[in-house]
Amino acid sequence: MSIAWTSSYSDRANDAKSSIIRELLRVTQRPEVISFAGGLPAGDLFPTERVKEACRSVLEEKATVALQYGETEGYRPLREMIARHIGRYGIKASAENILVTTGSQQALDLIGKLLINPGDRVLVEAPTYLGALQAFSLYGAQYLSVPTDEDGLRIDLVEGRLRSRPKFMYVLPNFQNPGGTTISEYRRRVLVQLAERFRVPIIEDDPYGQLRYEGEHLPPLVVLDRERLPRGEDFKLGNIIYLSTFSKTLSPGFRLGWVVAPPDVIAKLAQLKQGADLHTSTFTQVVAYEVARENFLDEHVKKLRAVYRERRDVMLEALAREMPEGVTWTHPKGGLFLWVTLPEGMDANELFREALKQEVAFVPGDCFFAPDCLGPEANRHMRLNFSNAKPERIQQGIRRLSLAVKAQIRELHPV
Amino acid sequence: MSIAWTSSYSDRANDAKSSIIRELLRVTQRPEVISFAGGLPAGDLFPTERVKEACRSVLEEKATVALQYGETEGYRPLREMIARHIGRYGIKASAENILVTTGSQQALDLIGKLLINPGDRVLVEAPTYLGALQAFSLYGAQYLSVPTDEDGLRIDLVEGRLRSRPKFMYVLPNFQNPGGTTISEYRRRVLVQLAERFRVPIIEDDPYGQLRYEGEHLPPLVVLDRERLPRGEDFKLGNIIYLSTFSKTLSPGFRLGWVVAPPDVIAKLAQLKQGADLHTSTFTQVVAYEVARENFLDEHVKKLRAVYRERRDVMLEALAREMPEGVTWTHPKGGLFLWVTLPEGMDANELFREALKQEVAFVPGDCFFAPDCLGPEANRHMRLNFSNAKPERIQQGIRRLSLAVKAQIRELHPV
Repeated sequence: MSIAWTSSYSDRANDAKSSIIRELLRVTQRPEVISFAGGLPAGDLFPTERVKEACRSVLEEKATVALQYGETEGYRPLREMIARHIGRYGIKASAENILVTTGSQQALDLIGKLLINPGDRVLVEAPTYLGALQAFSLYGAQYLSVPTDEDGLRIDLVEGRLRSRPKFMYVLPNFQNPGGTTISEYRRRVLVQLAERFRVPIIEDDPYGQLRYEGEHLPPLVVLDRERLPRGEDFKLGNIIYLSTFSKTLSPGFRLGWVVAPPDVIAKLAQLKQGADLHTSTFTQVVAYEVARENFLDEHVKKLRAVYRERRDVMLEALAREMPEGVTWTHPKGGLFLWVTLPEGMDANELFREALKQEVAFVPGDCFFAPDCLGPEANRHMRLNFSNAKPERIQQGIRRLSLAVKAQIRELHPV
Repeated sequence: MSIAWTSSYSDRANDAKSSIIRELLRVTQRPEVISFAGGLPAGDLFPTERVKEACRSVLEEKATVALQYGETEGYRPLREMIARHIGRYGIKASAENILVTTGSQQALDLIGKLLINPGDRVLVEAPTYLGALQAFSLYGAQYLSVPTDEDGLRIDLVEGRLRSRPKFMYVLPNFQNPGGTTISEYRRRVLVQLAERFRVPIIEDDPYGQLRYEGEHLPPLVVLDRERLPRGEDFKLGNIIYLSTFSKTLSPGFRLGWVVAPPDVIAKLAQLKQGADLHTSTFTQVVAYEVARENFLDEHVKKLRAVYRERRDVMLEALAREMPEGVTWTHPKGGLFLWVTLPEGMDANELFREALKQEVAFVPGDCFFAPDCLGPEANRHMRLNFSNAKPERIQQGIRRLSLAVKAQIRELHPV
């Protein structure tokens, strides 16, 4: 005989759910399926030659550092580079404000560990990033969802939610995953004031901020928050923990993200990270540093912007051309995703099955809503990724998708 | 003003403690200090040329895989290679039994997430691996410690502890960190029987198993456990989760460990890993696969064994030559560490300060004991690493350490 493992599982493990996206990715990996389901950067744009050259020089000059254990906080030259890099976006930081994480997902897990006692409430956008819900729920989070419109989260509804005393707010101000929406500057300013007034910290998740295809860069919440603080104190204080990553600008395979926060918070997060994985791969950190230096990363991001902007435009045009009346979608100013809303009464999960028959895939939107706002409205959405497929595949895929939508509409309203 | 972050921390974050070792490593990084404190593999033995060649070929042939997102369970060819590799040690496994983790430390964190409800008890050896205590405590673990002797954990005391219904047992059967001890085959067999009889699973942590310098390889617990199971079922069932890593055999900078368990347990762990870091770096996984293939790793490990065996012998000889009466130490048959016990009344933390004056460092042993067996006895030990320093440095360091010990003895017993 043998132990029945399920009876040994912790309550949190029993409650844990798989990300539907990672399950979907398996279904949709057949090459004949055009998949808008993933959130993958375009593989053909990886800076492979530069990485090769970086590996060679790292292994010739710094092998005993790159292959050895490292500091939990991260490889110091990389932390310093990140501090300089975000300084150009107005975020003043030194290495002491930076923790390198194993992808941004680890930052979300560490933040769950840091802040959430079971039953604590987290204010989130509706929809919001699935991976954050997954990370926070494991620590027993409950949710207070705030609906979004084309200017991001509905700031007029935030104050009411704050009266229910959430532990923190979690927002993605730029080209949100999955909505594609951006929080307006006015709303950012109000949000930062509310955080201070209600003493509720904000987790600002910004994986896509550099991938803007139109309009002006808007100040991050962390910058607006620091405007309140006396000069010289702004490194040490503040109500915002800011997250970003190299996954969308360099390579997701490196698993390199980072946290910007006051030094005391960084020290506590580093303590929690010790128990989680000791430190992030020294090798990928040193290589990423070599790749990114001398402004290579900025130049590379310019290329990405040009390619992704074209793909976004192709998808927007194809949607306008192919989709039947009653279907609407967001117009993201950057990032990787757009968000489609189906006519009332339609169910994106049923559509998904029909779409697979047409050999096209997307992510049904309900998985991006916290439990407090699930319901028929949450089932009317799909998330489409536009960064991964080439223009002709995008056009072909949207055509297939529109056929699936039309078939579903006929089924709902038979003539 | 600004939020006082500490008032937002979760209870678990407030309880979390830093690893004293990582703090010590900072103090002891001055080059004039001979440090036996770390657990670092020897940097001059890293297979740098092979890694360089692997990076080149990976980036020429598989860049779009190596730099892209990957499956949570791990890079499939690497999982298959690990399955073949451990098969040679008698552990039958297929890729479905393997989860790649971000170092073995992440496996410990995931196991804490998987199994521990706050207040659950974990049976551990005394002393045991500090990083496991750190990971499990974060999920609210309590401990039941079992003393060890030269044959590993005192098996005669295990049954009594099992009557207090621990959730699981955590043991390091080979060349334990920090004790350097190995559990005898007889005790392994009894332990496996007790696990089945009391229905208490075992976490078998085996980072050093391949680094044996004398004597015969002993069967892992997971192999002994499977002997009970009907043929064909042994892939699917069993009471043991087995952990190992490439950190000691290839490079800790890659952060690559793995879990071997029944497929259902692997699936659940993978679900938890999704929320923790999505997946381990694809790049280091693909590179490690290229490095390890064609038996390179086995050949490389033979070299490590020869060098580390010599260093162990040098340290043992130096201890015998230099240490005053009343000081004893273990004779590890493998691994990276030996464990020194000081005369009664001596305190290893006070000795540490004296040792630093002599420019030599070690880890005071109390941090390796769970709270249920802290006390003066726990303060009489030091962990010495013998893998990182070259022979002359080892001799010089042990000489310095003996001077510090003698000075402490004089202070305790003034003439």
